[in-house]
Amino acid sequence: MISWNNLDTLASFQELLNVERVNLAEVMSGENGAERVKNYSVPMAEGLAFNYGAKQVDDNVLSALAKLAEEAQLAEKYEALYNGEVINTGEKRMVLHHMTRGQLGDSVTADGVDKRSFYVEQQKKIAEFANKVHAGEITNAAGEKFTTVVQIGIGGSDLGPRAMYLALENWAKKHDTMKMKAEFISNVDPDDAAAVLNKIDVAHSIFILVSKSGTTLETLTNESFVKDALANAGLDASKHMIAVTSETSPLAKSDDYLAAFFMDDYIGGRYSSTSAVGGAVLSLAFGPEVFDQFLLGAAKEDELAKNKDICKNPAMLDALIGVYERNVLGYPATAVLPYSQALSRFPAHLQQLDMESNGKSVNRFGEPVDYVTGPVIFGEPGTNGQHSFYQLLHQGTDIIPLQFVGFKNNQMETDVVIQDSTSQQKLCANVAAQIVAFACGKADENRNKNFEGGRPSSIIIGDQLNPKTLGALLSHFENKVMFQGFVWNVNSFDQEGVQLGKVLAKRVLAHETDGALKVYSDLLNI
Amino acid sequence: MISWNNLDTLASFQELLNVERVNLAEVMSGENGAERVKNYSVPMAEGLAFNYGAKQVDDNVLSALAKLAEEAQLAEKYEALYNGEVINTGEKRMVLHHMTRGQLGDSVTADGVDKRSFYVEQQKKIAEFANKVHAGEITNAAGEKFTTVVQIGIGGSDLGPRAMYLALENWAKKHDTMKMKAEFISNVDPDDAAAVLNKIDVAHSIFILVSKSGTTLETLTNESFVKDALANAGLDASKHMIAVTSETSPLAKSDDYLAAFFMDDYIGGRYSSTSAVGGAVLSLAFGPEVFDQFLLGAAKEDELAKNKDICKNPAMLDALIGVYERNVLGYPATAVLPYSQALSRFPAHLQQLDMESNGKSVNRFGEPVDYVTGPVIFGEPGTNGQHSFYQLLHQGTDIIPLQFVGFKNNQMETDVVIQDSTSQQKLCANVAAQIVAFACGKADENRNKNFEGGRPSSIIIGDQLNPKTLGALLSHFENKVMFQGFVWNVNSFDQEGVQLGKVLAKRVLAHETDGALKVYSDLLNI
Repeated sequence: MISWNNLDTLASFQELLNVERVNLAEVMSGENGAERVKNYSVPMAEGLAFNYGAKQVDDNVLSALAKLAEEAQLAEKYEALYNGEVINTGEKRMVLHHMTRGQLGDSVTADGVDKRSFYVEQQKKIAEFANKVHAGEITNAAGEKFTTVVQIGIGGSDLGPRAMYLALENWAKKHDTMKMKAEFISNVDPDDAAAVLNKIDVAHSIFILVSKSGTTLETLTNESFVKDALANAGLDASKHMIAVTSETSPLAKSDDYLAAFFMDDYIGGRYSSTSAVGGAVLSLAFGPEVFDQFLLGAAKEDELAKNKDICKNPAMLDALIGVYERNVLGYPATAVLPYSQALSRFPAHLQQLDMESNGKSVNRFGEPVDYVTGPVIFGEPGTNGQHSFYQLLHQGTDIIPLQFVGFKNNQMETDVVIQDSTSQQKLCANVAAQIVAFACGKADENRNKNFEGGRPSSIIIGDQLNPKTLGALLSHFENKVMFQGFVWNVNSFDQEGVQLGKVLAKRVLAHETDGALKVYSDLLNI
Repeated sequence: MISWNNLDTLASFQELLNVERVNLAEVMSGENGAERVKNYSVPMAEGLAFNYGAKQVDDNVLSALAKLAEEAQLAEKYEALYNGEVINTGEKRMVLHHMTRGQLGDSVTADGVDKRSFYVEQQKKIAEFANKVHAGEITNAAGEKFTTVVQIGIGGSDLGPRAMYLALENWAKKHDTMKMKAEFISNVDPDDAAAVLNKIDVAHSIFILVSKSGTTLETLTNESFVKDALANAGLDASKHMIAVTSETSPLAKSDDYLAAFFMDDYIGGRYSSTSAVGGAVLSLAFGPEVFDQFLLGAAKEDELAKNKDICKNPAMLDALIGVYERNVLGYPATAVLPYSQALSRFPAHLQQLDMESNGKSVNRFGEPVDYVTGPVIFGEPGTNGQHSFYQLLHQGTDIIPLQFVGFKNNQMETDVVIQDSTSQQKLCANVAAQIVAFACGKADENRNKNFEGGRPSSIIIGDQLNPKTLGALLSHFENKVMFQGFVWNVNSFDQEGVQLGKVLAKRVLAHETDGALKVYSDLLNI
């Protein structure tokens, strides 16, 4: 029997508050530090490992976190989720994004169909479509092959798929699986669509309109933009567009599209990278086999998240340490710092994933909570960030926990030796150095050059960023956010906080405003 | 006579702590709210305006902030800075980036030359060089015109110039001043350079190596990468490369470069967009006249920052409100939200500018301060962010102050009407709506749909993003950060916090490690 309780009502949380704080700089020094880093590591799928040696925890904290995991029934709640319980209580929906990559438990039926079969079928249809495009069986009106795919979507229909595309673009080029270049149009700012349309060859482009409801204003507006461009080029838009939408949307059976692929209400936008939302664009860009590998990596990591032992469940452990940092140690934000240029937009995706899921002030029953929930998430790839905001991370007045990601090998397999080391070695040396610099600091009589240390970080280490490891990485963070939502007792799967702005924007466009809103509208010339 | 005192020693700060808090939702409602928004506006240069109607201030708070500005001698400190006092006490240097765009006060001599003349001369040389490249007088060995310019730099040599390039790329295309496409290589991750080199035509590319010291490891490594690529293409690298560096650097008089343009020690990387660091790439990309307009906009805004009346000095007022939010109201972060896709990397630049400048724990005399300093800065363009992390901004447990930017007109002047409004109108309607939604909120019996409001924001509004308004915008934020540094009594112009990581990384590469650092090095296969 599952009970949904607020964090501050749990006995194990009160216990956690009383566990002695760890002096990170101290425990990370000398041979003791070396032992910690060796021991505080959890294997992930696809050869990845989650290393938390430089987190501000010790065996006492971990044992308190294990009790918290048990009392909060994290494993049971995950099980309930993948077995089809209505976990998204706000919108009264199941939460089934895991099922796009595997069957973790019971079969789940909804809308009259087995949901795993439904997702598999959609992906199969996408694969067939993509293969035909790549083979030149589906072409433009002139019988020429499509060379570019353009995703039109916003929020979850943009950030995740875009981040995944960028993560694999160079890998695909290196492995000769690059089928089509992908571009993305998201912002309602007309310059976004205009700039993308300016740089592509529309006659050889296929556009994917992505909107679950089929009513997202930004996306429909950008679709019109694209249709105008196609018409101006003397092209038939319906031969250049496909839709990814829900079966009940107005786009589902429209003649305006070459094909329609379906998602459903059980997958939120920010969790949709492994559904048709990511599937269409990534399968077209890289081939369906690459997308399958991505799903496989995610599926394996999802399996690991079932483990009740937090020291064998990287996502759960990562989640619990994050809660400890936020609710016990009082740290306000988390930085995501991948040492991989291919992950340049991964932090932006995690920013949505995390902040939209757990940026809530009420629990799943709509009652205000008396503790802080989701932190601010931000980040840029290293080593770039080192030459930018790391100053504050090292010497600022707030402590910001850090989430590093690093790979032993680069994707392009081209490198250069300067001063006796490759660029890849320099990249890896920098992330290793940063972890220790943040944790241990360094005393200096000149206080301006003094480093307090005590700044916690974890790192996920892998051999190489490829479709499988990317899938595992994505799953890790999705499940981390889910577990944190369980601990905070919030509903991580709705987003009521974005509604008010939409309502007011409509009012502005209808010129039905007064007071401050009217003045702003006038100032902005609307 | 200027005195440098800690914030918490100022009588006006103690007074500020006792001023009654403003109920933002209340003061922003009804006709009172409309009046506020009309009145709480400061003109900026180039037709921009800084509107702070939705900030959590009133006349009492403003009057306390005015006293703080006076007691902290903000105007006097700015005057001392542009007159050449050694404001960067850590590195014992003057701070002269304003002088790249104008002469605000006394002439300043250093290294035996008048510094304003020096900066003007460098820009003149760059302009001559760029004009020759554009005219086909400087070409590749085959006598063909260069079509692409690639900046090789990291941190301030990358983020600012890249953000400015993206901000003006579409504008330049529309105004027929697009001379060359620009690309950027920054990360030591070898895949960064490889990906850029893969997509450009190296035979028609000119590369700018940017490193003040001439010793930045990432940049020199990427230079080698580029030289290899040029050699592999049978090209003479010295005919394809220019350097932007200091006169004393090893790059300054090397035959490896077609030309060298100079910066100096009085301009920090993050303040160097208006120096040769931004000047070379932007002049080559858009033509020197466009870069001149950019400088002009910045110069005008710099003049405004002299004003002692905070209600006529947008940068100073913005800075003071930020300090109030950070040190009195206790808000931990600030989001930068430009409603303009062209400003997609402007938040990343401000992140460096702000966090590297004011992420400090000691005052300018090296003594620890007892109050918080620089906040975390993050952001993405609207409306994209609305479909992402705005959930937390609206309903999260922390209040995050917001810095909006919006323009009445787009850059490309192409638009489409859907549901009776243009995309640009939708974009503007959204930012207006968001400001009011954040400030006023909306009560709902369903607490999950309830918006508390009380979330403060400001907006900078302009007609259009163009070289002049971009210059003004950049200057505004540079001066805001400078004034905040003065209030916090920190040195905003050094970055000792980035040194330890560099030292440790070198040790890793030399295999001179032990303890935790050795283990991480092994895990990462270095």
